Amino acid sequence: MARLVIRNCSVLVVPPAGECRVDEYQDIVIEDGVIDEVMPSGAFTGEAGVEEVDASGLIAVPGLVNSHTHSPMVMMRGAAEDVSIDDWFNRRIWPMETNLTPERVKAGARLACAEMLLAGVTTFVDHYFHADQIAAAALELGIRADLAPTFFSSAGADGREAAYDAARAIRALGAAADEYPRITASLGPHAPYTVTDEDLTRTAEVARAEGFRIHLHAAETEDQTRSSQERFGATPIEILERTGVLRAGVLIAHGCSLTDSDLSILTAQAERSRRSDQPGGLFDQPGPFDQPGPFNQSDQSNPFDQAGRTTVAACLKVYLKLAMGSTTPVKQLQQAGVPVGVGTDGAAVHNTLDVWESLRLLALTQKQREQDAEWMTVSDTLRLATRGGAAAAGRPDSIGAIEPGRRADIALVDLSGPHCQPLHDPRAALVYSTRASDVVTVVVDGNIVVRDRRLLTADLDEILAEARAVAHTLVDLSRGGAVQHYAP
Amino acid sequence: MARLVIRNCSVLVVPPAGECRVDEYQDIVIEDGVIDEVMPSGAFTGEAGVEEVDASGLIAVPGLVNSHTHSPMVMMRGAAEDVSIDDWFNRRIWPMETNLTPERVKAGARLACAEMLLAGVTTFVDHYFHADQIAAAALELGIRADLAPTFFSSAGADGREAAYDAARAIRALGAAADEYPRITASLGPHAPYTVTDEDLTRTAEVARAEGFRIHLHAAETEDQTRSSQERFGATPIEILERTGVLRAGVLIAHGCSLTDSDLSILTAQAERSRRSDQPGGLFDQPGPFDQPGPFNQSDQSNPFDQAGRTTVAACLKVYLKLAMGSTTPVKQLQQAGVPVGVGTDGAAVHNTLDVWESLRLLALTQKQREQDAEWMTVSDTLRLATRGGAAAAGRPDSIGAIEPGRRADIALVDLSGPHCQPLHDPRAALVYSTRASDVVTVVVDGNIVVRDRRLLTADLDEILAEARAVAHTLVDLSRGGAVQHYAP
Repeated sequence: MARLVIRNCSVLVVPPAGECRVDEYQDIVIEDGVIDEVMPSGAFTGEAGVEEVDASGLIAVPGLVNSHTHSPMVMMRGAAEDVSIDDWFNRRIWPMETNLTPERVKAGARLACAEMLLAGVTTFVDHYFHADQIAAAALELGIRADLAPTFFSSAGADGREAAYDAARAIRALGAAADEYPRITASLGPHAPYTVTDEDLTRTAEVARAEGFRIHLHAAETEDQTRSSQERFGATPIEILERTGVLRAGVLIAHGCSLTDSDLSILTAQAERSRRSDQPGGLFDQPGPFDQPGPFNQSDQSNPFDQAGRTTVAACLKVYLKLAMGSTTPVKQLQQAGVPVGVGTDGAAVHNTLDVWESLRLLALTQKQREQDAEWMTVSDTLRLATRGGAAAAGRPDSIGAIEPGRRADIALVDLSGPHCQPLHDPRAALVYSTRASDVVTVVVDGNIVVRDRRLLTADLDEILAEARAVAHTLVDLSRGGAVQHYAP
Repeated sequence: MARLVIRNCSVLVVPPAGECRVDEYQDIVIEDGVIDEVMPSGAFTGEAGVEEVDASGLIAVPGLVNSHTHSPMVMMRGAAEDVSIDDWFNRRIWPMETNLTPERVKAGARLACAEMLLAGVTTFVDHYFHADQIAAAALELGIRADLAPTFFSSAGADGREAAYDAARAIRALGAAADEYPRITASLGPHAPYTVTDEDLTRTAEVARAEGFRIHLHAAETEDQTRSSQERFGATPIEILERTGVLRAGVLIAHGCSLTDSDLSILTAQAERSRRSDQPGGLFDQPGPFDQPGPFNQSDQSNPFDQAGRTTVAACLKVYLKLAMGSTTPVKQLQQAGVPVGVGTDGAAVHNTLDVWESLRLLALTQKQREQDAEWMTVSDTLRLATRGGAAAAGRPDSIGAIEPGRRADIALVDLSGPHCQPLHDPRAALVYSTRASDVVTVVVDGNIVVRDRRLLTADLDEILAEARAVAHTLVDLSRGGAVQHYAP
């Protein structure tokens, strides 16, 4: 049995509702990847064979969750600046993505995992091509991930089925690697405007039959929603409803432009999943990945298919930078019973995979959106970035909080820098002052993956050198063509 | 003659208009605080007595300018979260400010200067009480500053005159300390809603007679502008016009809610100052502090009073966090000929004094405001944070760019971290990826004040200990009362 004790830290306690609090002078005892006890410092007496981390002066925060990203796109950061959303897709990114190869994707994913771990991000929820390579990178670097292999209907039935197979293979890989899988898979249709109703319906069927969740983009802008109504006679959310995607359980990236009808649909779906589930609030429902077991047995009926949980990932920097005009209506989604997490989206527009930046932008823009400085409090923001992210990752009960019984995903953060001091409120410092560089030590699934700001699981210099060596090949626009055309 | 050579860096070249560029493998030669030459690496041959900084792998960026702040408010960061703007002023900050003493202000200012220098901020433009203490801290820590002693009309004629005297004393202190003063002063009426027309008129007279600029808050929200029209029959900008403040030259903090009439007034004023000045664009006008000399001779007529330059400081995090509803209309201001800089405002709402964060938020929110992802480009953003800040500080010709003849205010930044790599565009990395912790070495007025991320001019641990020791006294609400009531 592997034991780890984090000694003498403050602990950020994030309850399912209400104010967060900070308990000082605590020890966190971890056994076999699970938080066993959180107790006053000194109460745990040392034993032989117990690994220790002295966290004096640091605050233990639930590892942050990047609720929506395309991790290998770090390879394109800075290569598509100051362009409209149309040009971003059609003249930059989708042409660049004709250059993707498994090796280049893996180089990007390794860099992305390194960036995230060093910043205290312990889980990421990904949507991309060659997702098996991302799985390999995540396994190597020691981060937790849920990976959805992307497909468009333009790739045909073969492309779609290949993407399902990729999800099955990743699931099997995750199950083979760990007793409690650190790597899980979702199905990854791109969006209702690039995937047909027929393919969405088929995806929902596979998801329900095999216990997958679905991760896709929907309702990103008002233009998209309006155009969807015109072209398909339904909003993106109505399409998810009629194709069975909502009932299968879905993580919606963005959900910025929702109609009243959409919110009614989402409310009804949340109601259905709550009725068939344990009682409880937004953050109180077990998710499909909260228990191991069935996910390496795809022939077995899915024990969680009744849940049909919907979650939404909000990626604020992207909405602002692409001048998308609207933003995720977090208040209305919470009223509908839909948990919201924060994400970075791909670094080809977000430039970083920094969830501290994302959660801060979420708080700031939500206050502005609602014209209410008392809304989206420090505590609510921290909850979205942790418990909300856990829900987005399909693990609302097993990560996202420092509590006995949860997987030990923890970031130890130093708030002693001049930009955080004096420290009237460490919770406010975490939302409004902290930089990713304040993260000192990171534990994922009970393993120390970053210690004293150094990545332990791989050679960062080698990762950087590899990324730099192939970066130019990914932004090369000379071959022409594109993986898809953006015309939502 | 003191000589410093920064060897083998890349240099961010920020022209007055158009795209920024990066020149690689450069040496920057500095003499007596002034940039003497920027030349290809190796062209400058070493001499005895020349101090050297090896900047291999780093990019030299014009030192950032914090165009509007209340530096000692770092002492209150995190002590007024999730409250409305009314409560922020009336139930938190203005009651807290009854606790100000010279010693406490100095402790806060020292911490603020340390935070800013370590983050590559080489100049700050401040507005606060006990400004002599801020001057002392800035002199000690080696940062450049323009300081406006704050006053309200509620303090009476004595309070007003005392604030002018404080500005005179700071100017004299700055002139006595350096041949080219690093510390300058402005006059600091708080705002048109807390200072009477009579006092503003008197301030404009003193400013013109003695060569001061005026630094105040105006047009912060739509409510303020509307209320000003109702109470005073004029918008805040119209009040600045009728009291002579605009003609004297003013730095306006915020300027979020401007009417068409306001923009016409600002356009006309910019036109007047351009006509009486050198020809040139927004960033091509010498400012009152661009030349030393007259500022320690308050009995001398002011050689720059014809200028009457208006500049505006935009502090985006504050507008979002306090849900102020509007934001600085940068596009319209630039069309009016008014230079804009970026600022943090006080850390009691902004939580940090991080100008990297401010400039990024400026770019993001401007794209959103104009619904144009092609607006507020990377180059324009960098220009606002450097040349725009220089204009806001009254030194458009002497700081804000790495060019021969300008004061040597330079931040050396490391873009080799995983959050910046691969580096397709270093300019984009500076706007969208960089963290303040990427700043390695900082030069102000030719002096190395931060080296290898360590503050050289003071003991950071001592500064932090002092701040922590007095922080509780500043947020104490037990004595009752307030320095002012917010009812604009």
